[in-house]
Amino acid sequence: MEEVGSEGLEEMLISLKDTFLKDVDVVTISDNYWIGTQTPCLTYGLRGLSYFSVEVECGTKDLHSGVFGGAVHEALPDLIWLLDQLVDVKGTIQIPGVMDDVLKLTEERADSTTTLISIPKLSKTRLEFGPWSLLRSWSEDSDPSQSHWKVFHSVGRQPGPDKIGKIVKSYLETKWEQRGSPNKMVVSMGHGGRPFISDYNHPNYVAAVKATEFVYGVKPIMTRSGGSIPITIVFQEVTGKNVMLLPMGQADDGAHSQNEKISKRNYIEGTKLFVTICWSWELY
Amino acid sequence: MEEVGSEGLEEMLISLKDTFLKDVDVVTISDNYWIGTQTPCLTYGLRGLSYFSVEVECGTKDLHSGVFGGAVHEALPDLIWLLDQLVDVKGTIQIPGVMDDVLKLTEERADSTTTLISIPKLSKTRLEFGPWSLLRSWSEDSDPSQSHWKVFHSVGRQPGPDKIGKIVKSYLETKWEQRGSPNKMVVSMGHGGRPFISDYNHPNYVAAVKATEFVYGVKPIMTRSGGSIPITIVFQEVTGKNVMLLPMGQADDGAHSQNEKISKRNYIEGTKLFVTICWSWELY
Repeated sequence: MEEVGSEGLEEMLISLKDTFLKDVDVVTISDNYWIGTQTPCLTYGLRGLSYFSVEVECGTKDLHSGVFGGAVHEALPDLIWLLDQLVDVKGTIQIPGVMDDVLKLTEERADSTTTLISIPKLSKTRLEFGPWSLLRSWSEDSDPSQSHWKVFHSVGRQPGPDKIGKIVKSYLETKWEQRGSPNKMVVSMGHGGRPFISDYNHPNYVAAVKATEFVYGVKPIMTRSGGSIPITIVFQEVTGKNVMLLPMGQADDGAHSQNEKISKRNYIEGTKLFVTICWSWELY
Repeated sequence: MEEVGSEGLEEMLISLKDTFLKDVDVVTISDNYWIGTQTPCLTYGLRGLSYFSVEVECGTKDLHSGVFGGAVHEALPDLIWLLDQLVDVKGTIQIPGVMDDVLKLTEERADSTTTLISIPKLSKTRLEFGPWSLLRSWSEDSDPSQSHWKVFHSVGRQPGPDKIGKIVKSYLETKWEQRGSPNKMVVSMGHGGRPFISDYNHPNYVAAVKATEFVYGVKPIMTRSGGSIPITIVFQEVTGKNVMLLPMGQADDGAHSQNEKISKRNYIEGTKLFVTICWSWELY
């Protein structure tokens, strides 16, 4: 449910607030990853996310590029131009206002690893050509009448996706006017996830730090990450208790990718870590 | 075979040159379309085509955008920037030298319809993200380690795809240097089709003009088109005879697209046209 942006999980948790979730003491979610392969991490912040969809339409149906090519104003070059307005060669987001609400690092946490993964980013992971993308593998000579784009944007903190949604939409619409294309462009925001931040001085984290030292023999790195798990903040709000993200896997596990793995070391030591943390909760 | 850029059809035709194809008088291919829906066409030229593949690689595997986002130099923005260097907002190709060999229209044929479809064009119909494009529909939070692009480029005339291949490759490599990206970029040309031009004063065409007038009651429009059928020039070379393209369908038939059709009128009159042309060949 979480991975596809569930429309029911949040409502269900809210409905269980005064029953199943009433006597919760602390919340631990183990769904993310270390930022390396050697040193354990505890995650106290998530960037949140915003999904956008941009559609450029140049006609009501796909056209044969041999017959219509050169005469029709294609949708795809417009979309590509728009996408190229979003980040520069260094990956810096070109949309004014997007960085305004990014939470600054406190001095005590401003180590280089934390800085890296606190930067909002714009990841263009999907371009679609409607309505024929599957068939296009055998026939490449039709110009698509529509081009879509979905973007996954990790934001900084509250007010999160609602504000970011307005900023990005306005930016793209302004750029579109500059483009001066005769085509039709629509930008809309899909689901978003609010950013999350937790108190890492809470006994929940203190217990986890101690347990990590006991199992791995080193202090964990405290991270804010962008592997956004929007339900985290819902757990925080519904229970009113401290929420901790306890990564079990390593950075090279390849989440959602080919040959996803978990190392034997992390599987075994991670199991020990969970037991140790549960035991330490008993001491509260 | 033709549609996928056959690697065997040309060789087979050459091997049949002195046997099966020896006593051919004229060649007629009916594989393309009218440029409108009302007036019949005869096609005496094809633009040819060149397929290119551009690959930008930023790593050896896909990375979770939440963990690595902001830190990794993604391949896709580089590819998008490169694509945006190819045509301007009006679709004009920005690659110097690409227009040099475009065959000029003779005065007698310089009507507006012929001009439109004689312009070389650059159609970017396919972007691929390897190796996970199918799975990306459910999980959009992995940054692809590779981005591919395939382009279908209709060229003007000889020397055709070989020369165009060198020009486009050199242009993209120069632009890539300007980009200054740490990623790896490889551009290569896939298969190409040489442009074709035929003598429309040949009796083959004269007979078709007369047959069209007999069946449809009007003179056909003489067209050069980009619905490139690379095997056309092979038929011309192997038989040494006049080759004519005789479109049967209308421009809105939606070749290779959803709900491809042929109108009843064109199906019935087209059948009559074929019979009439075969009959007129008997008169040679």
